[in-house]
Amino acid sequence: MTTSTDTRRLYGPVADDLPRVRDTIQSIAQAADFPFLQQMLESALAGTGKMMRPAIALLAGRLGAYDLDRLVPLAASVELLHTATLVHDDVIDSADARRGEPTPNALFGNAASVMLGDYMFAHAADFIAQTDNTQVVRVFARTLMTMAKGELTQDITVFEYSEDVTRYLDRIIGKTASLFGTAAEGGAMVAGATAEQVEAMRVYGLRLGIAFQIVDDILDFTGDPAVMGKPAGSDLQGGTLTLPAILYMQQRPDDNPIKKAFDGIRQKSNFDRAIREILESGVIDESMATARQFGEEARAALAAIPTGEIRDTLNGLVDYVLERRN
Amino acid sequence: MTTSTDTRRLYGPVADDLPRVRDTIQSIAQAADFPFLQQMLESALAGTGKMMRPAIALLAGRLGAYDLDRLVPLAASVELLHTATLVHDDVIDSADARRGEPTPNALFGNAASVMLGDYMFAHAADFIAQTDNTQVVRVFARTLMTMAKGELTQDITVFEYSEDVTRYLDRIIGKTASLFGTAAEGGAMVAGATAEQVEAMRVYGLRLGIAFQIVDDILDFTGDPAVMGKPAGSDLQGGTLTLPAILYMQQRPDDNPIKKAFDGIRQKSNFDRAIREILESGVIDESMATARQFGEEARAALAAIPTGEIRDTLNGLVDYVLERRN
Repeated sequence: MTTSTDTRRLYGPVADDLPRVRDTIQSIAQAADFPFLQQMLESALAGTGKMMRPAIALLAGRLGAYDLDRLVPLAASVELLHTATLVHDDVIDSADARRGEPTPNALFGNAASVMLGDYMFAHAADFIAQTDNTQVVRVFARTLMTMAKGELTQDITVFEYSEDVTRYLDRIIGKTASLFGTAAEGGAMVAGATAEQVEAMRVYGLRLGIAFQIVDDILDFTGDPAVMGKPAGSDLQGGTLTLPAILYMQQRPDDNPIKKAFDGIRQKSNFDRAIREILESGVIDESMATARQFGEEARAALAAIPTGEIRDTLNGLVDYVLERRN
Repeated sequence: MTTSTDTRRLYGPVADDLPRVRDTIQSIAQAADFPFLQQMLESALAGTGKMMRPAIALLAGRLGAYDLDRLVPLAASVELLHTATLVHDDVIDSADARRGEPTPNALFGNAASVMLGDYMFAHAADFIAQTDNTQVVRVFARTLMTMAKGELTQDITVFEYSEDVTRYLDRIIGKTASLFGTAAEGGAMVAGATAEQVEAMRVYGLRLGIAFQIVDDILDFTGDPAVMGKPAGSDLQGGTLTLPAILYMQQRPDDNPIKKAFDGIRQKSNFDRAIREILESGVIDESMATARQFGEEARAALAAIPTGEIRDTLNGLVDYVLERRN
């Protein structure tokens, strides 16, 4: 991988170290001694995207001794944990495609995909052990718990419209933000940063992750389906209420097409009306304001970090998360 | 749990510490802050059986500083990892019952069971981190990889009759023996036993686990269906060749009912004939001889352990594994 101008602008002083993280992740496919597993891993790992979580881990690692022999496995573990979760999520949701690409369960079946995810979890555990820091291992184990619990909550609330904002936030913390927080906290821990900085990075990562997921949920309504690789309002049509839909439910408790769609025979006309009204009702702006608020909290946490290139880059990530269009 | 005479006879000096392991495992259900998860955990953990893996971990822990604050989490992690694997296996195999009890996927569905297994893996990781020993964490991560890979191999060889004994052994090492080995190795590591003893315990556990699984696979043919909670020959009927079936294929390469059953329309009459002939052909005795051979190798590994109660108990476990009837 050559480091693109975009990556360099976004991740600043750690951009040139991300290829090493990517190679470490890819190495698990090459190491697989059995062709079917290798093929599945290559397919599942091909989707590795912007590497934002590993970049955060490395940036946090700059707050102390920047030891890549420990930080690269940490960053690889974060990304692999994220990817493994997606593999299991797609099994759970019977999803055929993610960002326009076929999912492992679509390609290889559910059974093989459950095991593929387990194998990736195992490698993530192996990488995390390479940090040689049991405190970091514990933080990761806790995050995995939070993530599994978050998924469980999501699953049992499908097609349930009583969801409120607090429950939504709990859910996206489990699904996304906890791992952002762990990437940031873990990187600072491995680097031997001060306790105050470790905690500041945890809060920064958690808040940034919440903002990231809210924007993701907004883009599910407003994004270009061709770029997103999914139709507008796909979460809602799958029975999941995200922030825009929850705010819209609160704004319009009566004659609400979501209630009708979730209660009844799930008529397409009700979903279409709901999506249209969500786009027109101002709840998208309201959701964006909430995302910005968490972005500001992420910035506030950075007060504990010395001014300079690292803090500027972390601040820049907040802008990027709030401004991204896909 | 009161310690029964059987448990005391079997596990000797560590029998009285097993309730603490069991309580630690059960505590994760009590700690779950959300009723559906709690209910699933209680159901999945109710099946915790003879606790042989935790007992091996504790016995190995007697070879050095017997520190229960580290050994109990280790033993709990081993058992939880085993149970989590069963949860995912039952999803993968679409199994409705295990030992006569409904499986989590039968009770709660596949999606929830994938997440339940993930949550249990996460807790197992948390317990293992409590040993505060990154060497032990790495051994566990490697075992998880071996286990996931073993499951994958099993899945892709279903209804394939070219399997030979070497591949079978690889598969049962992944499925069962690696975790027995890790329980023994991990216990000795946590106790700070000598490198020679750690290695001896790893070999002991691995060989004992192989013997255990071969006997399990024999009992699938010879066991009382009422006690086993499954019909005789259920592995074969599910398309999995175990040692007795593999030896029978080798003995009778032509006019073989397994070939016919696996190739064709899977006629019940072919399975019935195969099971009958396996029981009558001497391959059960031959399989038992193989199990005994691994049992002897487990005993041989114990030469590196001082004579006394621990070694006697570990030797007794070999007898038990070879003589058990269910």
